[in-house]
Amino acid sequence: MEAKRSLLAIFLLLSFLSISTATPTRKTRTRNPCKSMVFYFHDIIYNGHNAKNATSAIVGSPQWGNKTILTGKNHFGDLVVFDDPITLDNNLHSKPVGRAQGFYIYDKKDIFTAWLGFSFVFNSTQNKGSINFAGADPLMNKTRDISVIGGTGDFFMARGVATLMTDAFEGEVYFRLRTDINLYECW
Amino acid sequence: MEAKRSLLAIFLLLSFLSISTATPTRKTRTRNPCKSMVFYFHDIIYNGHNAKNATSAIVGSPQWGNKTILTGKNHFGDLVVFDDPITLDNNLHSKPVGRAQGFYIYDKKDIFTAWLGFSFVFNSTQNKGSINFAGADPLMNKTRDISVIGGTGDFFMARGVATLMTDAFEGEVYFRLRTDINLYECW
Amino acid sequence: MEAKRSLLAIFLLLSFLSISTATPTRKTRTRNPCKSMVFYFHDIIYNGHNAKNATSAIVGSPQWGNKTILTGKNHFGDLVVFDDPITLDNNLHSKPVGRAQGFYIYDKKDIFTAWLGFSFVFNSTQNKGSINFAGADPLMNKTRDISVIGGTGDFFMARGVATLMTDAFEGEVYFRLRTDINLYECW
Repeated sequence: MEAKRSLLAIFLLLSFLSISTATPTRKTRTRNPCKSMVFYFHDIIYNGHNAKNATSAIVGSPQWGNKTILTGKNHFGDLVVFDDPITLDNNLHSKPVGRAQGFYIYDKKDIFTAWLGFSFVFNSTQNKGSINFAGADPLMNKTRDISVIGGTGDFFMARGVATLMTDAFEGEVYFRLRTDINLYECW
Repeated sequence: MEAKRSLLAIFLLLSFLSISTATPTRKTRTRNPCKSMVFYFHDIIYNGHNAKNATSAIVGSPQWGNKTILTGKNHFGDLVVFDDPITLDNNLHSKPVGRAQGFYIYDKKDIFTAWLGFSFVFNSTQNKGSINFAGADPLMNKTRDISVIGGTGDFFMARGVATLMTDAFEGEVYFRLRTDINLYECW
Repeated sequence: MEAKRSLLAIFLLLSFLSISTATPTRKTRTRNPCKSMVFYFHDIIYNGHNAKNATSAIVGSPQWGNKTILTGKNHFGDLVVFDDPITLDNNLHSKPVGRAQGFYIYDKKDIFTAWLGFSFVFNSTQNKGSINFAGADPLMNKTRDISVIGGTGDFFMARGVATLMTDAFEGEVYFRLRTDINLYECW
């Protein structure tokens, strides 16, 4: 008799368990990152006089623009290619742990906004591999979220969100971005 | 005696349950979207005479091209940066719910085809955040599928497919794209 | 008495099972690809004299560059748009199974490195649909991994890694890339 009652209890439990495992994966997803990292990268744009130090250059511009001075209208239409050092702190002269490589395009006439497609390429003792990013960067916001769209090596199949913050901005030649990477898919 | 038999039954059940939870996630994936949305966006390309209304501009072109007229050979090589209003219906003058920002490149000599990298950036009462897209756009097809490669804010970690349809095309200055977004990964 | 003991055993089992189903999905992910494919694609860059055969063209360049000759400094800043035939073997003249369409940007001054955003667009009896790629391509490495960031049609919602190998390189006009695609998310 007691055995029968416990049996019933167990079947109820099993049913409940079975339902909970059938819930779509979506419901069980957690927004706790599986990996978090902070990096800084440093962009020195070519202005006609800094060929040696420049890490980026204008390679496309609208009719009214040119290749050495970011154009008016909030640089709308300027396309910049970059190969920027990545550091662990905000010091341009710290030993780089990798390179941020890709492009950004200023894409709005009435406010500073850019679209980014780039990778963090690591080659340090700590990390090997790459993280790929894409997304809109409304520069005037204190923080901007872009997507981690994939990764290789140590970051195999990564997905997540990166939060960009302008950490320094000097004239139209140098800027430094703090990048808080939160991965929500790790393999 | 009865207790033993029920014990056996329960173990069999447990084994079965255990197997079913081990099935690879892939098999349980459904192609039913977790979110579907329809938007329109409107592109007015700069042609030298419409600086005020233009929402996009040619910023790269092949040797035989220029920055104010889309080039011959099906515009092959023309790179266009855009910041286009997004509306809920097909009226250019409806209140925008966000901006479509990024670029397209015409990339085929013998037919109209483009490659797109852009974001929908929302800032309405209904939606905050961004959806990031990439993919090939064979313009002459009635419908073309591109990838939703990520999202932020309300669209945190989104993935899916967007179907583009040319809803209007006026000369080489204005076009309107209907965009049916189906997300299959929602968080 | 025996029934009680077995009850305890079952509850322990249930607890264990319940814990194991709560393990983050990440742990159960396998690095065995769900689909593997090998393709070659062929790039013939426009140099001012090969308009008929060229499959790609320079459409952006830094101040010191131009649109018909890849620039010095390891082509830093040259942006190339391409529409390249995809073949199943390494023969340029084999029947194409699709087109590789998109762009690459040389993005480093002291070594050949590029950033790629492109799609494989298939239209063969074997495959319909597209695979979208993004990532850094450090050309001097024998193999380079980029991300499969999405797919459509036969490759609906695909994610994975593609390994690029330079299979041939002739002057600065022709190159052939072997592309080993491994998908780890198939739907």
